[in-house]
Amino acid sequence: MQHELHVFTKALIAVLLWMCAGATLAGEMRIIENGSREGFIGSSEQFTGTAYIEPVFAKEDPFAVNGGKVTFLPGARSNWHTHPAGQVLVVTEGTGWVQEEGERRREMHAGDVVWCPPEVKHWHGATATTAVTHIAIQQFKDGENVVWQEPVTDEQYDGARQ
Amino acid sequence: MQHELHVFTKALIAVLLWMCAGATLAGEMRIIENGSREGFIGSSEQFTGTAYIEPVFAKEDPFAVNGGKVTFLPGARSNWHTHPAGQVLVVTEGTGWVQEEGERRREMHAGDVVWCPPEVKHWHGATATTAVTHIAIQQFKDGENVVWQEPVTDEQYDGARQ
Repeated sequence: MQHELHVFTKALIAVLLWMCAGATLAGEMRIIENGSREGFIGSSEQFTGTAYIEPVFAKEDPFAVNGGKVTFLPGARSNWHTHPAGQVLVVTEGTGWVQEEGERRREMHAGDVVWCPPEVKHWHGATATTAVTHIAIQQFKDGENVVWQEPVTDEQYDGARQ
Repeated sequence: MQHELHVFTKALIAVLLWMCAGATLAGEMRIIENGSREGFIGSSEQFTGTAYIEPVFAKEDPFAVNGGKVTFLPGARSNWHTHPAGQVLVVTEGTGWVQEEGERRREMHAGDVVWCPPEVKHWHGATATTAVTHIAIQQFKDGENVVWQEPVTDEQYDGARQ
């Protein structure tokens, strides 16, 4: 009798596991609440000045992109970098600067959207006197969505042609 | 002499066209300015009530997703629909409702992020008394990023279990 119960319990656990796996495979709508996605200050290995980064959405299978919200305080900027499969910046607050290598520095304003194609070396950040916030969405390629390079010098940031 | 000039002009045009094509292929950073992406009221074939849709970013090769900002006035909601490769909603203003088929209606607030997996039938919109705005990002599969279905009835919208 005890043996039979044991078998029954094992079978029940197997069925429950199968049901859970099924639910996971089918996928369920999920709300990731405000305040549950912990932000952090961008590392000085990738940023100059103060950049506050809040994860917005992770790469959820089969999605090929992830998203992060970045607030640059005045004077702050990313290092030069490229994206293997491109990036979109949706500027939500303030005014910032963005520069593609070999081109002039340009202003980006709340409501602007910036498309940066794959492998285009660039940087983005605040202006010297205003903060800026953007949602950055980048696609992965072979597991990578950014390749970091050298810092933006003060001379480059101040607007000399790169 | 006139003939030689003609040939020279043709060669020059060919070189210029080739240079332009090269520039396009290499890809350049592009700022799509606020006010240049014309919004529209969502069709009554896909929405109940007033939903204002502003394109945020198109699907740029090789990007697999596009993005649109939707503002639902109180009472407004999408039809039931699915996304073949999933959707992320980034709630930027207000409070809305979202419901997955077979589950209870849930609230979404500014700062919340909603992940809706592929093929999960759902709707989203404002609450009965508050507007809501979200950026909706959806991935394409075989050229499609949404499959529209029937309207959300008043009974469903008012919160009865689906």
